[in-house]
Amino acid sequence: MSFSAADHGFMARAMQLAQRGLYGTTPNPRVGCVMVRDGRVIGEGWHEKAGLPHAEAAALAAIVGAGGAAKGATAYVTLEPCSHFGRTPPCADALIEAGVGRVVAAMQDPNPLVAGQGLARLAAAGIEVASGLLAVEAHELNIGFVSRMTRGRPWLRLKVAASLDGKTALNNGVSQWITGPEARRDAHAWRARSCAVLTGIGTVRDDNPRLTVREVPTTRQPLKVVIDSRLETPLDAAVLEGGNVLIAAAQDDGTRSAALRGRGAEIVILPNAQGKVELADLLQELGRRGINEVLAEAGTRLNGSLLREGCVDELLIYQAPILLGDAARGMFGLAELTDLAGARHLNIIERRVVGADSRIRARLA
Amino acid sequence: MSFSAADHGFMARAMQLAQRGLYGTTPNPRVGCVMVRDGRVIGEGWHEKAGLPHAEAAALAAIVGAGGAAKGATAYVTLEPCSHFGRTPPCADALIEAGVGRVVAAMQDPNPLVAGQGLARLAAAGIEVASGLLAVEAHELNIGFVSRMTRGRPWLRLKVAASLDGKTALNNGVSQWITGPEARRDAHAWRARSCAVLTGIGTVRDDNPRLTVREVPTTRQPLKVVIDSRLETPLDAAVLEGGNVLIAAAQDDGTRSAALRGRGAEIVILPNAQGKVELADLLQELGRRGINEVLAEAGTRLNGSLLREGCVDELLIYQAPILLGDAARGMFGLAELTDLAGARHLNIIERRVVGADSRIRARLA
Repeated sequence: MSFSAADHGFMARAMQLAQRGLYGTTPNPRVGCVMVRDGRVIGEGWHEKAGLPHAEAAALAAIVGAGGAAKGATAYVTLEPCSHFGRTPPCADALIEAGVGRVVAAMQDPNPLVAGQGLARLAAAGIEVASGLLAVEAHELNIGFVSRMTRGRPWLRLKVAASLDGKTALNNGVSQWITGPEARRDAHAWRARSCAVLTGIGTVRDDNPRLTVREVPTTRQPLKVVIDSRLETPLDAAVLEGGNVLIAAAQDDGTRSAALRGRGAEIVILPNAQGKVELADLLQELGRRGINEVLAEAGTRLNGSLLREGCVDELLIYQAPILLGDAARGMFGLAELTDLAGARHLNIIERRVVGADSRIRARLA
Repeated sequence: MSFSAADHGFMARAMQLAQRGLYGTTPNPRVGCVMVRDGRVIGEGWHEKAGLPHAEAAALAAIVGAGGAAKGATAYVTLEPCSHFGRTPPCADALIEAGVGRVVAAMQDPNPLVAGQGLARLAAAGIEVASGLLAVEAHELNIGFVSRMTRGRPWLRLKVAASLDGKTALNNGVSQWITGPEARRDAHAWRARSCAVLTGIGTVRDDNPRLTVREVPTTRQPLKVVIDSRLETPLDAAVLEGGNVLIAAAQDDGTRSAALRGRGAEIVILPNAQGKVELADLLQELGRRGINEVLAEAGTRLNGSLLREGCVDELLIYQAPILLGDAARGMFGLAELTDLAGARHLNIIERRVVGADSRIRARLA
């Protein structure tokens, strides 16, 4: 399939529009749509929030609102138009009804049960369809949605702020602030785009974090998830403020759980054979709840568990230009290796300077 | 003092020439010289090796060799012309004799006993003199020579190859190869420009390194220095091959030292109160021996000692895209901190990608 330079330009614009939904579409994907006729944009739309119109519907409404019509137009969409009834009617039907002549999608719907059906429906109605333009960018934009659709679990990004010698906290637990204000703000932007922020009881005890998005504007706060096997979250923990918190435990305890529920927390019991929380089960549970992207901000031990149990998809590492020495706490509590063949290999996907710190994004190879 | 665009261009050329001495001038500085008349280069020279002509003499010889004369020319030199007799006569005298009209130096001679005297001698002879053009670059090029002249000790660059989680070796000592072939080659280029490569007995035991320059061409091998408080270097250690090795111990032992001398090693005894080698004394000793730049390639313990005892000027950190986990060995054995105020702060001076690895250069802030 080949695309023209104009096709690339209009799809790039649709991608920009989709980006506007970065902090708000949960559990839906971020989608943008540009309608073009005779080389001119006649309408634009994007999905803003679950329950509000999809990108295609928004673009069609924009055209009608301006007194125009979509007949014969080309629709550029960053994701295959839906073919099923959700909270809103199928976009494929709306495009057929509006009489568009061509639909170009960046990628198919990742849900294996529906992939391609939206495009097939359009093609069956005599509309020219194509897919795969800026597919890599579209996939990255909705990597969490894709993960949930294909694996039933969210995309888990693990954030670590460390010194240049790989230390995340002093031995006494002190870790604020290793990195600078710019890195902190940057990390809040990653919180904001995540549907959930996850931490462990150790971090709740050591740092008492709020886990809310504060340093950047956002249209919604992510769900706060605490892994707390024995329900030891203090009732005055900052993470409980304002509710919107899910505590994952390994065993119930009537008194503790009642007290935590009284503080607005929801509790799920997901034990494994070792009396800890089964992390893979928790990810599946978050997937069922429509969580696409999770940002884990935890300590050495939970970081190690997440990595060991295959739960980490991406690392977001901030490195401060300081040294703390070997006595300080490290990044990942892993089993001792006797052979370098046991090392976890990473693909570095981005290196960037953020204030005085470095930011490295990597994926498990 | 103001310089023209042409001045900048000719000095940049002189700096390029000086770079050609990067691997060979020990204990002398790297110096380049460009002679210009009527806007044209009439001769170039650089210092290649101790005992061979200085840059100015080489440039004058090139002019004469081409049947020309330097009368009335401008001499661009990356370091103030010398005013004393060393292995060769003073370059200031040679320039005066040749009748040059103007001398532009990038920086003064850093030796506080002679700084400015070469330029003063030229000025007294009626030659127009100026200094400070591309001074930062000139200083960087000879940072080790400057260190030795002003502090009596070499510039110490500490090289560490680590995983992304700050681990330099497994607990069993295995550390080959954490970083890739490009990083190894790059590290050999840093060895090649150093007058000495320094390691500890722990690394000799764990890795049995040769410490020679092999991966890049070089005109001389650096001195190999082993810190070995109790003279425990095995007689079949690879570092002893080919001689050119200095062992620093804390106490003599007739039998051991005789055996090591028999293997071609030179031994210095530099004890401190703890029965270890006094590292600051060793640096002064290396300074007395004309060592300008030292590359330290050691393990966690010696790295920590060098850092604690204020011996580290620069860090050269290679980071491989792997994780080894907290059980592995870290970068710096330092005393435990109870407060982040005790962190060592760094100035990152360069970040670069080398093959699959990252290279970070930093200086103690």
